[in-house]
Amino acid sequence: MSATAGPAHLPHPPAGPRRDRIVEVPRGLAGVIVTDTEIGDVRGREGFYHYRQYSAVELAGQRTFEDVWHLMLHGVLPDAAGRARFVRETAPRRRVPDAVRPLLAPVAAATRADGPLAGVKALLPLVGSALGMRPLYDSTAHRRQDDALALAAVVPTLITALHRLQQGQEPVEPRDDLAYAANYLHMATGSEPDPVRARAVEAYLVSTVDHGFNASTFTGRVIASTGADLASCVAGALGALTGPLHGGAPSRALDTLDAIGTPDRARAWITDRVLAGERIMGFGHPVYRTEDPRARMLREIAYGLGGDLVAFAAEVEREVVRVLADLKPGRELHTNVEFWAGVVMELCGLPRSMFTPTFAASRVVGWTAHALEQAADSKIIRPAARYAGTPAPQPVPVLC
Amino acid sequence: MSATAGPAHLPHPPAGPRRDRIVEVPRGLAGVIVTDTEIGDVRGREGFYHYRQYSAVELAGQRTFEDVWHLMLHGVLPDAAGRARFVRETAPRRRVPDAVRPLLAPVAAATRADGPLAGVKALLPLVGSALGMRPLYDSTAHRRQDDALALAAVVPTLITALHRLQQGQEPVEPRDDLAYAANYLHMATGSEPDPVRARAVEAYLVSTVDHGFNASTFTGRVIASTGADLASCVAGALGALTGPLHGGAPSRALDTLDAIGTPDRARAWITDRVLAGERIMGFGHPVYRTEDPRARMLREIAYGLGGDLVAFAAEVEREVVRVLADLKPGRELHTNVEFWAGVVMELCGLPRSMFTPTFAASRVVGWTAHALEQAADSKIIRPAARYAGTPAPQPVPVLC
Repeated sequence: MSATAGPAHLPHPPAGPRRDRIVEVPRGLAGVIVTDTEIGDVRGREGFYHYRQYSAVELAGQRTFEDVWHLMLHGVLPDAAGRARFVRETAPRRRVPDAVRPLLAPVAAATRADGPLAGVKALLPLVGSALGMRPLYDSTAHRRQDDALALAAVVPTLITALHRLQQGQEPVEPRDDLAYAANYLHMATGSEPDPVRARAVEAYLVSTVDHGFNASTFTGRVIASTGADLASCVAGALGALTGPLHGGAPSRALDTLDAIGTPDRARAWITDRVLAGERIMGFGHPVYRTEDPRARMLREIAYGLGGDLVAFAAEVEREVVRVLADLKPGRELHTNVEFWAGVVMELCGLPRSMFTPTFAASRVVGWTAHALEQAADSKIIRPAARYAGTPAPQPVPVLC
Repeated sequence: MSATAGPAHLPHPPAGPRRDRIVEVPRGLAGVIVTDTEIGDVRGREGFYHYRQYSAVELAGQRTFEDVWHLMLHGVLPDAAGRARFVRETAPRRRVPDAVRPLLAPVAAATRADGPLAGVKALLPLVGSALGMRPLYDSTAHRRQDDALALAAVVPTLITALHRLQQGQEPVEPRDDLAYAANYLHMATGSEPDPVRARAVEAYLVSTVDHGFNASTFTGRVIASTGADLASCVAGALGALTGPLHGGAPSRALDTLDAIGTPDRARAWITDRVLAGERIMGFGHPVYRTEDPRARMLREIAYGLGGDLVAFAAEVEREVVRVLADLKPGRELHTNVEFWAGVVMELCGLPRSMFTPTFAASRVVGWTAHALEQAADSKIIRPAARYAGTPAPQPVPVLC
């Protein structure tokens, strides 16, 4: 059961089966090409990332979330009629399946200490069962797309319902007449957002749909490569996303601003941290050698929203650059996506406990697109390990 | 958030950052060494696999499940006092946490069509929250081991409770005075098993604790490499396990026996299948070039249990070999672990819907040992993909 039981009619590979060919690679599989993809890429040196053939930042500025979702899933941007059709198709699927609804409150209660995403992990398998999801391996391409739509449509509802229940509030039903982003804010806050804020969050959500071949996307693809159902792929990806080494936490950047307190304290606070060798949350990225293009876009959005928080954040950003220029000359360090994403979400009325869940909501679109691409390949992802323990076999000692 | 936000005090790698070094490897990462491991290995050419330095089959014949669990988690077999201590430590942890108990019945109902493992996927995050599991990244080594013990102890209870609820029966409480395997059969069937059957299932459970670096184990390790909590690692591994390309399904081998019906029909049925190029479930393995050592062990156990089913299975096994010798001379094809595992579980009173869940119950021990080994490494597993779509950037078309 640890690997495919090969079809009885196919001879096994002849001499030198593949398992015996050992391939040495860098630690953590860094740079190892697992697959070709047509979904997108990150070009770290250029400070550029794209979905399909389009700049993600340009899409965030010019297209709706639904347009980009359509692009990720179907491979093309919709025209006006296609957009209308896609909206009609997806909006009704935001509703939590009847079989899962009674579980919302108890799951919210059982995961209160861990926030909405722990509850989403628990609910995803139940949604999969309620919608009759089959293993990707046994599904038609049409059925796979249908499952992908269903999951990306319902996860925002699960997140916001769990959030509200965990805050002692009633969940807010999705509204079919609102677009994805406006409806998300509506479900999270209980009131219809003003168009400027809805648009700001929409741009943020578009910008986080996908970002190269990160650990959560890879996890989802490994699970998809076994032919498992799509809910299992997304749940696994979500598990990886919640790992501290995977990703950021936009709330941490705001915690930095809180810790600094006032603009006049920024320079001293940052200097102390840099001299103590501590990390400053919201700065630095392992891929981008230039400014993170998401940070640039979100800074512009924040400037558009304006206010004291934005002015303070801009001051802190400038001070970090100044302090580093003094203390670590030649070192380029830029704000990452966390920093301005946190500011934008705060200004749009989302509480900090909803920052990472909001990121995850839109990333489901990316994960499902990747899982479907992987499922079109019939090859399981199954690397190897080198046994480095005491040589085997040693005799099993008699119990004494 | 798609990758680690690097510590602000550490300079990024200088020229030629690792992301830009591209490493080409075989499809599906076949043969690619992801890590060193001290947990075990499969030597396919020799028909041998081991846990730590001991033959897994020898362990299955000579040691208790708890002994092997201790070996996997702590790296050494216990002595008599250590065994007693470990049993005292693990038995009470079989109980479902109070916060999760009320969810058993509704989760069982919501996943009835998909069986116990779909329910376990849903309950694992709730168990993690109830037990206050933290990210592996933030946990001490002691706390990680504690979480591993808790999960491997409680999953059999979740599986059997969900199974019984899905069959319209009341769950059976775990009994601290029974060993792991006997208690498992007790919880599954509602009655205390006779010692011969308890021992047969114990040997099977020991033999399935681990089996090399398969896709579910790898999934669990990828999630662990992000520093996520252990419940997320096990849930992800379970998702991969349920993929049809990952693994076998011991029930399929019994379905083969059902389809054949009676011994006199075996030869014609098998011949028809081989000539039609269909696979015969229960035969063939991609790693073992010899007999699967698990199949050999389980055949012996089945012979010890005896009866009509065993005689029939043995006849079918002989006929498959004969038919292949006639139709595909030179081709060696052996029964895999599915074939005799199914027979043994059937004889021990486990229904077919519990075959894969029973396999998963013991595999949690292997997954958690692997996740802990991975967590001791601080390097995230994050490979790369090659963008192969339409070159980017293309201008975003204006919506028309």
